[in-house]
Amino acid sequence: MPLVRIELQRGKSAEYRQAIADGIYEAMRETIQVPEHDRFELISEHEPGNFLCDRHYLGIERTEDLVIVQITLRRGRTTEAKQALYRRIAERLRQAPGIRPEDVFVTLVENGPEDWSFGGGLAQYVRTPPQ
Amino acid sequence: MPLVRIELQRGKSAEYRQAIADGIYEAMRETIQVPEHDRFELISEHEPGNFLCDRHYLGIERTEDLVIVQITLRRGRTTEAKQALYRRIAERLRQAPGIRPEDVFVTLVENGPEDWSFGGGLAQYVRTPPQ
Amino acid sequence: MPLVRIELQRGKSAEYRQAIADGIYEAMRETIQVPEHDRFELISEHEPGNFLCDRHYLGIERTEDLVIVQITLRRGRTTEAKQALYRRIAERLRQAPGIRPEDVFVTLVENGPEDWSFGGGLAQYVRTPPQ
Repeated sequence: MPLVRIELQRGKSAEYRQAIADGIYEAMRETIQVPEHDRFELISEHEPGNFLCDRHYLGIERTEDLVIVQITLRRGRTTEAKQALYRRIAERLRQAPGIRPEDVFVTLVENGPEDWSFGGGLAQYVRTPPQ
Repeated sequence: MPLVRIELQRGKSAEYRQAIADGIYEAMRETIQVPEHDRFELISEHEPGNFLCDRHYLGIERTEDLVIVQITLRRGRTTEAKQALYRRIAERLRQAPGIRPEDVFVTLVENGPEDWSFGGGLAQYVRTPPQ
Repeated sequence: MPLVRIELQRGKSAEYRQAIADGIYEAMRETIQVPEHDRFELISEHEPGNFLCDRHYLGIERTEDLVIVQITLRRGRTTEAKQALYRRIAERLRQAPGIRPEDVFVTLVENGPEDWSFGGGLAQYVRTPPQ
């Protein structure tokens, strides 16, 4: 269910980008109980002039390798689970493709079970059948 | 008011993409009372390597024609209205440009009336004048 | 903290796009107490056929210079603060790069303090340490 938007500067290989997506998916599996195969990730590559992110905010030193991740997911995860998710994403991306944890920015947007249709015109997470 | 983000793999014609946007707009008109001309739709085309979506999750067979739709809209629609919206989007896109319903993924994000400015620096859906 | 997505039609100079991002950042600083250097802005440029926005909705006359801005930010701003933000963004963009206020569309999406990790795998706005 999570819809994951990944944004970074243009210039990285397909393997590098794939590793980012893989790592985020695995981190979601490990920390917020995302089911296997629940994977919907979109990557956008930006020219430097279209990727205007501060390099020092909150004392975190970021580089041109910064990755911005926005995840839309259902409400209900605890703060502790979200903290585990951030930590695990940073760990995973450090392992592969080898991104400094300071270069991993994540933000979440929550919605409800009725806010998802995975195909076929149905709201699969709603228990009651459509009228 | 809805802001509609449409994402698909690169390679479809302008007519095909226009038909997707038309169909979603018409479906919103028909099911969730979106006013005429309230149409703000952005399409992003992705290389296959930047469009990492599962082909089988929840038993729905998806193809490379998968369309991911994220709609930001005001709170207040019932679950039934959302179910009708998903169904109608899938029907419309099957009619034109001819997309299998299994290849239509929709997710919603809600906000409030004070979260929209349609131009001119004003929050048109707020009744009280700005201070 | 705000994550700012800016979308416009392709064809504007780097200076023009930079001025849009600068103006939005300054307007957020002036009206909704965004800290200095809290700046994370992504610009996407679209072909006309992928930027399907109504030219007249609500009686506002829009042109091909329309800019769509979506800001994800923490909950807690008043409606008055949001109205001030919209007004100030429109004023700033009129000053530079010289955009008609009618061509500035803004929508907000809110989340919580636990929904942000600015790097290092931590949720910097959460007071309690991770477990």
